[in-house]
Amino acid sequence: MATLGAQHKHKVTIVGSGNWGTTMAKLVAENVAAHTSLFEPTVQMWVYEEDVTVPKDSRHYNADSDKPQKLSQLINKVHENVKYLPNITLPSNVVANTDIVDSCKNSTILIFVLPHQFIAKACDQLVGKIMPYARAISCTKGVDVSDKGIRLLAETIGMRLNIYCGALSGANIASEIAQEKYSETTVAYDPPPIDSRNPTPKGSPASSQVDLINPSKSVPGERSARLQALPSEYPALSHENIKKLFHRPYFHVHLVSDVAGVSLGGALKNIIALAAGFVDGLGWGDNAKAAVMRVGILEMVKFGKAFFADSVRTSTFTEESCGVADVVTSCMGGRNFRCAKMAIQRGESIQDIEQKELNGQKLQGTSTAYEVNSFLKSQGMEEDFPLFTAVYSILEGKAKPEDIPQLIETKN
Amino acid sequence: MATLGAQHKHKVTIVGSGNWGTTMAKLVAENVAAHTSLFEPTVQMWVYEEDVTVPKDSRHYNADSDKPQKLSQLINKVHENVKYLPNITLPSNVVANTDIVDSCKNSTILIFVLPHQFIAKACDQLVGKIMPYARAISCTKGVDVSDKGIRLLAETIGMRLNIYCGALSGANIASEIAQEKYSETTVAYDPPPIDSRNPTPKGSPASSQVDLINPSKSVPGERSARLQALPSEYPALSHENIKKLFHRPYFHVHLVSDVAGVSLGGALKNIIALAAGFVDGLGWGDNAKAAVMRVGILEMVKFGKAFFADSVRTSTFTEESCGVADVVTSCMGGRNFRCAKMAIQRGESIQDIEQKELNGQKLQGTSTAYEVNSFLKSQGMEEDFPLFTAVYSILEGKAKPEDIPQLIETKN
Repeated sequence: MATLGAQHKHKVTIVGSGNWGTTMAKLVAENVAAHTSLFEPTVQMWVYEEDVTVPKDSRHYNADSDKPQKLSQLINKVHENVKYLPNITLPSNVVANTDIVDSCKNSTILIFVLPHQFIAKACDQLVGKIMPYARAISCTKGVDVSDKGIRLLAETIGMRLNIYCGALSGANIASEIAQEKYSETTVAYDPPPIDSRNPTPKGSPASSQVDLINPSKSVPGERSARLQALPSEYPALSHENIKKLFHRPYFHVHLVSDVAGVSLGGALKNIIALAAGFVDGLGWGDNAKAAVMRVGILEMVKFGKAFFADSVRTSTFTEESCGVADVVTSCMGGRNFRCAKMAIQRGESIQDIEQKELNGQKLQGTSTAYEVNSFLKSQGMEEDFPLFTAVYSILEGKAKPEDIPQLIETKN
Repeated sequence: MATLGAQHKHKVTIVGSGNWGTTMAKLVAENVAAHTSLFEPTVQMWVYEEDVTVPKDSRHYNADSDKPQKLSQLINKVHENVKYLPNITLPSNVVANTDIVDSCKNSTILIFVLPHQFIAKACDQLVGKIMPYARAISCTKGVDVSDKGIRLLAETIGMRLNIYCGALSGANIASEIAQEKYSETTVAYDPPPIDSRNPTPKGSPASSQVDLINPSKSVPGERSARLQALPSEYPALSHENIKKLFHRPYFHVHLVSDVAGVSLGGALKNIIALAAGFVDGLGWGDNAKAAVMRVGILEMVKFGKAFFADSVRTSTFTEESCGVADVVTSCMGGRNFRCAKMAIQRGESIQDIEQKELNGQKLQGTSTAYEVNSFLKSQGMEEDFPLFTAVYSILEGKAKPEDIPQLIETKN
């Protein structure tokens, strides 16, 4: 639906082109084509250029395919990311672009879908080169946790680029969504009220800001003073219009205002998945697995309330896709769950399993468990999070998986 | 912990001796032995007598085993229920008793663990024969739903016997608990304040009573006027002491006051398990399965709030074992989930699968889906519960599993 008086349309860029990034480009491109009064017709997708060869089993394999080609050129020619999302046809309005600055030029909506470790560098390349009133959404899960504090990835992006950044997270295995199998997601979007046609009654604009020394103290007013309002020539970026950017018949979107909760869910679920893998590896069955999932969800809630008290809502964890549903998916067959289960069944360390089974990739759950423990220790709060602490202790060899029931038993 | 001035101890009877009943007898007997100042040392277990033969693979099989024996006598001789809970040794303080009245004589705590259809008859045999101030807990899951209204099983027991009845429900596969594998449960216990040493600050005494014509209207004061107070010679049946009756190192108990929520969770989860089986049968993967589970939990909340507004708490469904954890367990491998999945994979009706695979047993999910639909229809509220209604429509052949995303899509 066009907003009265709107003259410009939103240009959208996907910053990233891996498995999840290409999937997001596909569905966003389908949506901009369906809402032509709101969005420019093409979607830019920033590609970190590399040479690829078309696999022999690809439908795009031919006599010339054995010589390496540029990934970006191949995407724009065959409308498929043969390396990271094979066998999925992309809409022709997805345009691969290897120049990150050019891909974001004039864009008012930047969707970040990069591996965690590349986000800071990508932002640094964009500083001063983007529309000053652009808005961003982080689709990368996770937070930066250390013994000094917690920073949401959305905050990292927002603070480096001096723009507002929301978050998208849910029970979202990319390959299933690319195949248009049904799933849901949660989008948190709660910009400060300077976008006058987009009042944000829930939460304060500063609620997603965290002082790194003491993350429970936000910094009132700081960000809203710096942000530039979206000019009135653009359609408002209301929850309704943000939903139109992501929602598909096979991808149901629920909008919330709790950026911290959505971001924490995607990070902390990996610790829970390790715990579920441990008890499942012991052969304890479905009761036990459901129990650690339930206890884990409540520790997520407690963590959010303790360190993001101003913004976090219990329901983000207990009722949204980014909370309970993502925990369920991660504990049914996710990588952290499977490796933890295998470690117990084989009597090997999870580090050994990681090396043998993951082809050089790293488990997010173990690093998150260590980072969260380091932070909780610095706050003197390890005992308040017995499941998170139990997972850390098991990884450290200081506790056994068999101890989990006793370690998480509530005394009242 | 003994209460000062208490002279009597609570005698406990388990009314039922199937798979779940015998499991409850085992763990309750372990607990009465551990809390000798609160409870009488033996636990009566009512056994519906039948002739059994010891299976050849049983450790209790011997030369005499081929002739049928009375189940009750066998239980008391070998301390095992060879028919319904084989290979699990019962504590010697579990006493099987075939006389339901005698088994409940002088008992102040009656734990009902009977199949749904036998509860009314068992209660009728006990009317006027039990301690007038006895208290009950229903461990049988489910509710009686029809187009006239909803009655909790705990209400059925309480009203027939004119005593207070709470409920126990959770992610509790009996065989896993009998093997002392870790699990959790939820116990709802909220008697009226006439047990003076047991004030119930949360919820009103009448909140678990429902007018069958309009279940959202409770009947204030009716029950508390009829109930007899627990004499002061007995230890108070506080949440603390009720927890001591059920909690074990391998069976973690959380006490709540929401009898309606605990009871509804155990019934409605079976509809959700059918939906999860349908989408899993389509090969839609873990995102889709987690999505219908999440939507289902929220419909449980909505159902509870609509028809038990006075007593139901959202957290019973989203945070307790009887809610989210039981949904998880039921959707991972429960009978309703498995049959629904099989029906889709084989292209057969769920009724055919039920007949072929369940050996004469009936799926609870299908009957609950029909009963709930009949009730919702009578209230003009089918559209308010799109997932429950979708499951009914699929069972009726009026919708296809592929329609689920569209049927449950929220418009805002």
